[in-house]
Amino acid sequence: MRKFMDGDFLLTTETAKTLFHEHAENCPIIDYHNHLPAAEIFEKKTYENLAQVWLAADHYKWRCMRVCGIDEKYITGDASDYDKFMKFAGIMPKLIGTPVYHWAHLELQRYFGIDIPLKAETVDDIWAKTCDMLAGEGFDAVSLLNKMDVKVLCTTDDPADDLEWHLAIKNADDIPFLVLPSFRPDRFFNIEQPTWRGALTQLADRYEKVSTWEELQTALCKSLDFFCEAGCKVTDHGFIHFRYARETADITAEAVFDKAMSGAALTEEEISVFQGALLKFLAAEYNKRDMAMQLHLGPIRNNSPKLVKAFGADAGGDSIGAATDPFMLGAFLGDLEETDDLPKTILYNLNPADSAMLATMAVNFGSKVQYGAAWWLHDHIRGINEQLDQLLETGMFAGSVGMLTDSRSFTSFGRHEYFRRILCEKIGNLVESGQYPADMEVLGEMVEDICWRNAVRYFGFDI
Amino acid sequence: MRKFMDGDFLLTTETAKTLFHEHAENCPIIDYHNHLPAAEIFEKKTYENLAQVWLAADHYKWRCMRVCGIDEKYITGDASDYDKFMKFAGIMPKLIGTPVYHWAHLELQRYFGIDIPLKAETVDDIWAKTCDMLAGEGFDAVSLLNKMDVKVLCTTDDPADDLEWHLAIKNADDIPFLVLPSFRPDRFFNIEQPTWRGALTQLADRYEKVSTWEELQTALCKSLDFFCEAGCKVTDHGFIHFRYARETADITAEAVFDKAMSGAALTEEEISVFQGALLKFLAAEYNKRDMAMQLHLGPIRNNSPKLVKAFGADAGGDSIGAATDPFMLGAFLGDLEETDDLPKTILYNLNPADSAMLATMAVNFGSKVQYGAAWWLHDHIRGINEQLDQLLETGMFAGSVGMLTDSRSFTSFGRHEYFRRILCEKIGNLVESGQYPADMEVLGEMVEDICWRNAVRYFGFDI
Amino acid sequence: MRKFMDGDFLLTTETAKTLFHEHAENCPIIDYHNHLPAAEIFEKKTYENLAQVWLAADHYKWRCMRVCGIDEKYITGDASDYDKFMKFAGIMPKLIGTPVYHWAHLELQRYFGIDIPLKAETVDDIWAKTCDMLAGEGFDAVSLLNKMDVKVLCTTDDPADDLEWHLAIKNADDIPFLVLPSFRPDRFFNIEQPTWRGALTQLADRYEKVSTWEELQTALCKSLDFFCEAGCKVTDHGFIHFRYARETADITAEAVFDKAMSGAALTEEEISVFQGALLKFLAAEYNKRDMAMQLHLGPIRNNSPKLVKAFGADAGGDSIGAATDPFMLGAFLGDLEETDDLPKTILYNLNPADSAMLATMAVNFGSKVQYGAAWWLHDHIRGINEQLDQLLETGMFAGSVGMLTDSRSFTSFGRHEYFRRILCEKIGNLVESGQYPADMEVLGEMVEDICWRNAVRYFGFDI
Repeated sequence: MRKFMDGDFLLTTETAKTLFHEHAENCPIIDYHNHLPAAEIFEKKTYENLAQVWLAADHYKWRCMRVCGIDEKYITGDASDYDKFMKFAGIMPKLIGTPVYHWAHLELQRYFGIDIPLKAETVDDIWAKTCDMLAGEGFDAVSLLNKMDVKVLCTTDDPADDLEWHLAIKNADDIPFLVLPSFRPDRFFNIEQPTWRGALTQLADRYEKVSTWEELQTALCKSLDFFCEAGCKVTDHGFIHFRYARETADITAEAVFDKAMSGAALTEEEISVFQGALLKFLAAEYNKRDMAMQLHLGPIRNNSPKLVKAFGADAGGDSIGAATDPFMLGAFLGDLEETDDLPKTILYNLNPADSAMLATMAVNFGSKVQYGAAWWLHDHIRGINEQLDQLLETGMFAGSVGMLTDSRSFTSFGRHEYFRRILCEKIGNLVESGQYPADMEVLGEMVEDICWRNAVRYFGFDI
Repeated sequence: MRKFMDGDFLLTTETAKTLFHEHAENCPIIDYHNHLPAAEIFEKKTYENLAQVWLAADHYKWRCMRVCGIDEKYITGDASDYDKFMKFAGIMPKLIGTPVYHWAHLELQRYFGIDIPLKAETVDDIWAKTCDMLAGEGFDAVSLLNKMDVKVLCTTDDPADDLEWHLAIKNADDIPFLVLPSFRPDRFFNIEQPTWRGALTQLADRYEKVSTWEELQTALCKSLDFFCEAGCKVTDHGFIHFRYARETADITAEAVFDKAMSGAALTEEEISVFQGALLKFLAAEYNKRDMAMQLHLGPIRNNSPKLVKAFGADAGGDSIGAATDPFMLGAFLGDLEETDDLPKTILYNLNPADSAMLATMAVNFGSKVQYGAAWWLHDHIRGINEQLDQLLETGMFAGSVGMLTDSRSFTSFGRHEYFRRILCEKIGNLVESGQYPADMEVLGEMVEDICWRNAVRYFGFDI
Repeated sequence: MRKFMDGDFLLTTETAKTLFHEHAENCPIIDYHNHLPAAEIFEKKTYENLAQVWLAADHYKWRCMRVCGIDEKYITGDASDYDKFMKFAGIMPKLIGTPVYHWAHLELQRYFGIDIPLKAETVDDIWAKTCDMLAGEGFDAVSLLNKMDVKVLCTTDDPADDLEWHLAIKNADDIPFLVLPSFRPDRFFNIEQPTWRGALTQLADRYEKVSTWEELQTALCKSLDFFCEAGCKVTDHGFIHFRYARETADITAEAVFDKAMSGAALTEEEISVFQGALLKFLAAEYNKRDMAMQLHLGPIRNNSPKLVKAFGADAGGDSIGAATDPFMLGAFLGDLEETDDLPKTILYNLNPADSAMLATMAVNFGSKVQYGAAWWLHDHIRGINEQLDQLLETGMFAGSVGMLTDSRSFTSFGRHEYFRRILCEKIGNLVESGQYPADMEVLGEMVEDICWRNAVRYFGFDI
């Protein structure tokens, strides 16, 4: 029997252990997609206790607490930090097999040097010890990132954002890693939602009048240029329903824009045409600027009216949605390729039923399109293995840009370690079962490439 | 090499063996969903031979025989019990890897003490021995259930049923377990089918006039109350197409009901509105009565016209259907939550492509909604592992209500043992690979909870 | 650690090794579905170098090269054979985990006796050695097939084909295996595409006037009879969208045919009716002639406009498409069964999300319908395991017709060995874990049946 989460956690072969300890473990981190607040980095935010670090904004943990029947008071309610943490510690043993269980213990080990399991019997010691440590040196946001050897962070930002904090960080002397904005224009796609008009107004306030389809394109380009000046290399799109329809003689993006501005209700087809035209336009602009486009496909969001009413979005009431239409996605990527407008593109799926479809579609477009890391509710050992298997089977493995945190937490960078262990274990199994030669030099370099160098090259980070 | 299906069948680690033999193996059985005929329990039905036990009504075995090319005469035809059993035994070696192969041998071992493989060479001995045993004491329906330590059985019953046998069993002195009805109103949903009018008539005959949408609701509530008096805690719904549309100004359940009564053909949307309204109404009524709602999603039924013509439904011509629409299902559950009407709910899928969608959706609604056991054609080692993995990854594992037989057979309770072995093996692998601490006390209690105590608590069985 | 791809490649248990080496390894090959050109068999085509063998037409390898960023010049462009092969060898180490990596090394081992890994460091030796061997005796198309003990080949042919080369091979003295045509009428289904009219003309030129729906049926029957005379036992259909709608009073196949001939655009429903009627008609004709019908379901084709423009179809721009509608497929098979017209049928899926649906649907129709081998982009170790698991779980395993190459290459027959190793490993694991008795006689025969005898019986090959 292996010890609980020891140094060889998830590594069962000698090949895997060698690849992890001699290569993966020491690679810097390029976290090209997350939701960290740049302001908290610049301000070097500190924390009083582990409840603030773990439970203030982490919907993964909230979901686990709700599943275990904890009263909402102790999840997002007005209970004290201490009481919330007690409740969380109390259910930890029930979280057997969740990524949350492993992530939490990886964080205790790597950030705090604590290697006992968190549970009711150990929580008081762990609370006291972590409170002490958090009150001392080395636990502000920047120190936490440095501790993990983070070299690049790409946050997620709205086109109307002034990137105040990113610019401030760029000019700061004591932040030794890149903090780059990512361009995420989702609000501008949701033409059928009440938030759309507000998005236009904010963009207009920051750049210039947005009262026509053409003006929208112009303003978004100005924003894109501004993002690029701030170092932006990556863009991001989230789609609940990925829709793509070409403009027709009757339905043009311009006409749909005008109709929406007039307040009239749109048909499904009109929405598809508008979204398709906007995405195609932006993709071409990304390509001109050598920016990568991320497509996150397939959640169902805000599925709990109670949580939406009480907290709004991102409260943990989101789950896996429908499979993506391969014909719409294929038509979109094909149209871009036909006019030489296809940017670097990464396809992420939430519904595992899409994995093989997306992975094989990526290959249709050569090395420009990648199949992305296991995302969100699919980001667990099986999900990571599924992504790696797809990469292996299609030949995309060695060139993959690897892992990201997609996280709101400054202590979540153990997810890269989690991924790297599974990665090395996967290769170890191929080698030790005779499916690949034991060429450790080639494999060591391949592992390092996947852990960080491929991402630097693919996105063109200047480090 | 391990011996064929010995005492440690499916258990490869010491942790798994300990959890199974010291905990799971000795837990009573709470079978909260099956199709056993209550009459046969009350009457303590007996059997002359294994063909009557195994081949009279088991469409799992029928499918296997058809796949192996056996003539229908020996499956559902007029061949003798002996000849049918000979044919079945003859193909047993070809059934490598099927759950039927394992179930049959578990039954031979546990009910009859026979631990040799069934095949042409052994069938005569096995036939003779089992005939002898079946003719003796301890092999009537009640004894077979007692042998497996069954404490609760929930059968599947129509709202128009008078529950004669359930009431008789309740008053019987010599039936030491609960036999409770489950409320399954499927016939009342299928408004587009010819059977719908008959269902209304039967319900009306038993309760009161059902000539309007309101009267239907009233009559179903009377039936619900009657079922509750008989101890009913569980309801059940099967959907080939799960459809949910909200009532609109133009389309109301009342109007669709009236239109159907007039004999006019309904549109897809009208059917969706009616089904949605009826399901929402019933769900709220379940919640008032603290009853659980089971949703079985995604088969395609009666796909063989020949079998339907010859035998009607449940003859083995059913298979896995389409993926469920997450937006319709999410809207249904969300609408119920919004008005505080969401009952305890269990989601079952037949199409494995739905597993992650359903499991993650359950979590949106906290501890009230569970992701159910591997169902029917998905009820095999991989399917059970898939369900357990989903439970583990989402944090629902420790609170799960565990297994059920969904069976028409009095000897099918080895399926609980099958599940328990896979359950213990799963935990054993997590522990022995260092993914979870070897805290055997916590794990032993968790296993027992999943095997039976969680079900007692969740459903509120009075034992 | 196991040696790289040694004699026990993919075999980890004694049972698996015994089954493979004493049974599977020595079975002849019945390749009932491939795309080999009959002309090249008759002409005993030879090759100058491995680039001609491997890179001239293999879109699997092309996809791998594109993923690794190789310039199209070295893939399908005008670079020399030598330069192309250098590029391919250079990326081989990056192809870890692909079936291409294993297939290539199996081919080096079995055809050329080379057992070192192909990479930049070894490519010159391998190039020189294989060029020498290819220039000598025993490396023409017929010799390559003989080396693998091929007994039956079923190519893929258009109904308008004159089968010149198949007939020539039939009369040749020195080709000791059967080379049979397969009837693949896809062009006649695509009534909405410009190629449809050309297909009718070619069929008319060869048989008789095709200006009506009835004449189309007559001409196709003449072609079918001609194919049967040439030994055809297998037919094949590929569907991007499997559509099946029954004829209605308003929409008949005859009317849709006439409308298409008039040049008018067809609705989706009209296309579905026409395709459904044509497929149903042909299926019944297949059944009359005891021919098997293969349905290949679910790709998305020609998804890269650049590749289509440069090379046309089959250039590697195809990937996995949408899930198949179980209700349409079920209605089609059910309608055929109802009128006793259901032919032997094999269902293949490209989208793994369809596996369980297709496998369980096959069983609805007894032993006539099989669930087919892992196809194309799903033809890798996981995909083969997935197909075998479905076969095992449904009881179809022992009767399965086993593997095929689906290939355009004369050296691709190592794919049968690949399958057989995974097959034996699968059985070995069942036996050695105690899930099946160690009855080696039964298992040896079962393995041989799956490797070749089941196919001979099912298709009725005359060998």
